[in-house]
Amino acid sequence: MLRFGLFGAGRIGKMHADNLALNADAELVSVYDVVAEAARAVAEKHGARADATVDAVLSDDVDAVLIASSTDTHVDLITAAAEAGKAILCEKPIDLDIDRVNKCQADIADCKVPIQIAFNRRYDPTHRAVHDAVRAGEIGDVYQVIITSRDPELAPMSYLQVSGGLYRDMMIHDFDLARFLLGEEPVEVMAMGSVLVEPELETINDVDTAMVMMRTASGKQCHINCSRNAAYGYDQRLEVFGSNGMVQSHNRRATTVERYTKGATAQRDPLLYFFIDRYPEAYVDELNDFIDAVANKREPSVTFEDGRRALLLADAANESLRSGAVVRVAA
Amino acid sequence: MLRFGLFGAGRIGKMHADNLALNADAELVSVYDVVAEAARAVAEKHGARADATVDAVLSDDVDAVLIASSTDTHVDLITAAAEAGKAILCEKPIDLDIDRVNKCQADIADCKVPIQIAFNRRYDPTHRAVHDAVRAGEIGDVYQVIITSRDPELAPMSYLQVSGGLYRDMMIHDFDLARFLLGEEPVEVMAMGSVLVEPELETINDVDTAMVMMRTASGKQCHINCSRNAAYGYDQRLEVFGSNGMVQSHNRRATTVERYTKGATAQRDPLLYFFIDRYPEAYVDELNDFIDAVANKREPSVTFEDGRRALLLADAANESLRSGAVVRVAA
Amino acid sequence: MLRFGLFGAGRIGKMHADNLALNADAELVSVYDVVAEAARAVAEKHGARADATVDAVLSDDVDAVLIASSTDTHVDLITAAAEAGKAILCEKPIDLDIDRVNKCQADIADCKVPIQIAFNRRYDPTHRAVHDAVRAGEIGDVYQVIITSRDPELAPMSYLQVSGGLYRDMMIHDFDLARFLLGEEPVEVMAMGSVLVEPELETINDVDTAMVMMRTASGKQCHINCSRNAAYGYDQRLEVFGSNGMVQSHNRRATTVERYTKGATAQRDPLLYFFIDRYPEAYVDELNDFIDAVANKREPSVTFEDGRRALLLADAANESLRSGAVVRVAA
Amino acid sequence: MLRFGLFGAGRIGKMHADNLALNADAELVSVYDVVAEAARAVAEKHGARADATVDAVLSDDVDAVLIASSTDTHVDLITAAAEAGKAILCEKPIDLDIDRVNKCQADIADCKVPIQIAFNRRYDPTHRAVHDAVRAGEIGDVYQVIITSRDPELAPMSYLQVSGGLYRDMMIHDFDLARFLLGEEPVEVMAMGSVLVEPELETINDVDTAMVMMRTASGKQCHINCSRNAAYGYDQRLEVFGSNGMVQSHNRRATTVERYTKGATAQRDPLLYFFIDRYPEAYVDELNDFIDAVANKREPSVTFEDGRRALLLADAANESLRSGAVVRVAA
Repeated sequence: MLRFGLFGAGRIGKMHADNLALNADAELVSVYDVVAEAARAVAEKHGARADATVDAVLSDDVDAVLIASSTDTHVDLITAAAEAGKAILCEKPIDLDIDRVNKCQADIADCKVPIQIAFNRRYDPTHRAVHDAVRAGEIGDVYQVIITSRDPELAPMSYLQVSGGLYRDMMIHDFDLARFLLGEEPVEVMAMGSVLVEPELETINDVDTAMVMMRTASGKQCHINCSRNAAYGYDQRLEVFGSNGMVQSHNRRATTVERYTKGATAQRDPLLYFFIDRYPEAYVDELNDFIDAVANKREPSVTFEDGRRALLLADAANESLRSGAVVRVAA
Repeated sequence: MLRFGLFGAGRIGKMHADNLALNADAELVSVYDVVAEAARAVAEKHGARADATVDAVLSDDVDAVLIASSTDTHVDLITAAAEAGKAILCEKPIDLDIDRVNKCQADIADCKVPIQIAFNRRYDPTHRAVHDAVRAGEIGDVYQVIITSRDPELAPMSYLQVSGGLYRDMMIHDFDLARFLLGEEPVEVMAMGSVLVEPELETINDVDTAMVMMRTASGKQCHINCSRNAAYGYDQRLEVFGSNGMVQSHNRRATTVERYTKGATAQRDPLLYFFIDRYPEAYVDELNDFIDAVANKREPSVTFEDGRRALLLADAANESLRSGAVVRVAA
Repeated sequence: MLRFGLFGAGRIGKMHADNLALNADAELVSVYDVVAEAARAVAEKHGARADATVDAVLSDDVDAVLIASSTDTHVDLITAAAEAGKAILCEKPIDLDIDRVNKCQADIADCKVPIQIAFNRRYDPTHRAVHDAVRAGEIGDVYQVIITSRDPELAPMSYLQVSGGLYRDMMIHDFDLARFLLGEEPVEVMAMGSVLVEPELETINDVDTAMVMMRTASGKQCHINCSRNAAYGYDQRLEVFGSNGMVQSHNRRATTVERYTKGATAQRDPLLYFFIDRYPEAYVDELNDFIDAVANKREPSVTFEDGRRALLLADAANESLRSGAVVRVAA
Repeated sequence: MLRFGLFGAGRIGKMHADNLALNADAELVSVYDVVAEAARAVAEKHGARADATVDAVLSDDVDAVLIASSTDTHVDLITAAAEAGKAILCEKPIDLDIDRVNKCQADIADCKVPIQIAFNRRYDPTHRAVHDAVRAGEIGDVYQVIITSRDPELAPMSYLQVSGGLYRDMMIHDFDLARFLLGEEPVEVMAMGSVLVEPELETINDVDTAMVMMRTASGKQCHINCSRNAAYGYDQRLEVFGSNGMVQSHNRRATTVERYTKGATAQRDPLLYFFIDRYPEAYVDELNDFIDAVANKREPSVTFEDGRRALLLADAANESLRSGAVVRVAA
């Protein structure tokens, strides 16, 4: 039984708490949130205690922490939890500032606690099946990875202002998927970005529509396209093309219904609305995998370094966007 | 909180027990099985007691029973539970003998307990979406219902010998779906059947490959085709065709992966293997719906009469198979 | 070079004339139609002569006749052409009256001319690919054939009144496809029919919505469903299910476009409107196959007997509809 | 009646000759090829004359020329034909050298003859339907265009050596499609390329696997990915994503057959093999459109300037590949 402390009782935190309740090997013991009332509600629902301080969460009866608080708190919580010897499952991104991430990595280097970054998409059954097929050699050598990632609706400006920008906030998932699927580090990044949806984004130097190309040392290529606003829904597709074939992960729908009427042929269900609806199994499976890693004293499948690498690529994309030139990233 | 007694701790019983554990408004209190060890195992897993007799299950601390024992025990258990004032959720079919079903109906007529027959397919999200679209008038007046229902593998002869035959054991689900989708009682039934898979079925006067046509009083039509053995998997499709269009429920797969290699284009995942894998949400939802019906003192959505009606149609099909003539069923 | 005389210069006749023009081994020499003006127009377009009598068409410079006139003229034209020693490609059905068909068969028994009945659907590339896969043993022994055949729009009552009824006029195509796909003669036929679209059909004892089940001597089964009026378009699907798998022929569309907007997900092109648009290659290929059969002195792929057999099944369906009983057809 | 002279009697030339034969408003009068025997064969098949010189083709009885000879001959033939006052339909690319293209443009500036560049993909029914939907405003403002373009098999080195390289030889089609779909000139180009299929390409400074990103002045984006070798077939897909939705053009297959067996689910036909098989209607329609443009004295739909623009983008991609920087192209 792994006893959890939860940091953050917002939308994602609540979902993680519900998933913990489904896992027979885990127990939610303590909840902390800057909004005490939010912590209390989640604690009550799951028979846990609401703690008033971070230190109280990191007490002896907690084995692991799940960090689902705002991004700017991640590094401090990781450091504190690591120093307290807790296993750590932390939401992406680690931080928006690579220097802070590097410092955190150095600070906790001696702690030897298991740390997993919550790149949930790696756990999506379909994305994972693509990954597994590729790793099993079904399509031979990887040539190209194509990732399409479009949100169903623009987030509010209040969020966008602190998000860190499209590449570090949104495309960071896709940078991680790219590494997951390529099986090799991208060493070159080129980026393009535009403000086509929300002109106000110009004022904070961000974009809402973006493309990236990347290349590994051996020449494998990856393209990612993102939009903050796809009118038709949350579009999450990817494909890997290799010397012997191609594997695709298509969008998901609630049912397999197909409708035919005079004006509308082969109408299917809308795309599942957003990440909570699109990736439910992934959130469960990443938790299970983390619990299993801790229980079996093996390295988590998605490491701190994975989190750091994704941020390096996002930063490279930002730099390429500014400079108009390819940016080289260390392998 | 609805406190449940469970009759039957086999494959389906275990699944129902697991689903009860997921429902915050239900609690498994007692388990009974002719194999005491089986009851004990399920009871232990869910913190319930294993009872040695039917009467013990029907004690005061049980509000409802879930009957998942063998078909020949259903009628007696329904009668006993109804007389004990318990709400009843009973697996299909009620019984293989329409006379016993009719007698049971008469016997419990005064009991006024909620009884739901577990025709799970009505709760499949896609089949249900088809039903809802039809009832909402999306395709106008219903003209034809087409149901394809093929099992992935022949059941063992030991099962087939006591199954009651393809129409009452397997197609009974489809007869229920037909009524659900037509929105009108079939009054004419024609059947054809063949032994194409397992010659030994001839010896027990059963078939493994079958077709049925039905017609309602207003002329709506329904076709069902069944096979005990589809090499490519569990094939569960249906469509409703009406004056303004058509709605289809397609097969389901584990993921949306699509594979392309030199020899194999657009390869998708195999069909989900069998009913437990294909209809997991349906089993959960039928349970939730039953609990909700009891809690809100409303009639269950799938009634004893629904179970009886499906059997009447199966019997009519058997008769048509023998006689080669249309069989009329009372509306 | 096969020199053709064409009987009938209506919609189908014109299309056949155009197809003849595409075939380097054929030449349209003469056209006849009861409406002389219609014959003249087609003749002019293709540099042929318009003849005033049937006999004039059957002159020495004509090797083969293509009969695309109204159904009631087919038998006389076949007989005359056969006696004149011409190869014959005749539109379906041969006639609506099985006695006349039998007599015609007897009358021309000694003529030894090649006769092909224009069951175009056998030549559809997709239907044919299904047939070829089945005959090649890809799905093992055939168990069931399912055919869906729905017209996009009710024909005018003036046509329906002389059509011979749904089974002989429309489902006749599907009876032929059933034989083509089953690879065995159906020996039992059961039918259901309803008037759901056009009440006036009651007055002529016809139906607009129909289902049939058939069975061969070895127990293979076939279901056909037809409608005179599918709001969403011309629906032409079939599947063959066997011991090792299933092969399907899906509907066709003009393009592979898929559209996604807020209100409409995965919208595809409408189904191709009607037979001329849906089966263009089939009309060309049946002509090519006929020309090839004549050139190579081999029996045509679709024979007079095939036309007669399809009518026998249609008649059996009509009889079953009246009697409510299975109708047996000689193998 | 437009009388054509044909330059080039190779694979593409022969196909164009066949298509000319299908067009009632066109007539093939003369054929020229450096291999006299090839010219003779095509001429004979279509009742045209085989000419021994370019000048002989450009005689008075020829109204238009179809240039399907090797790329290095295009500019001279265009210039000669334009000066002779002939309408010109010229295969892509105009030339591999932008200076020669510019000079050609200047040289024929006063000739006022209709010139169409044969970017056949614009005429593909599905690609065109996407274009038409976009131009009709179905998906609002264009945000992103994604084009996937992969050949089924590496061309022989002898061809690759003179091809001009992947961007000018193969991706040139996609640059043209990008302009066609964006409805705005790309002004920024970034490219990545790799040798993953055929190491020998290193020796000629070419690549076999490539990606491009482009951006228009208003910020619309386009991604193209190409491969010289897709094991699973000729992969030709595109999508346009805009403020109100998305439209996709999917791959095409010979039939709509779908196969299910134990080891292979939902198997469809292979992709149509290569451009001649994939784009047959496009070749016919571009010819018809050219003939119509000449007949109606309107500007051809795909102009010399379109051919020049596509080459500018290919050159920009090559430069970006070398420099690793964004390359700006004049709007």
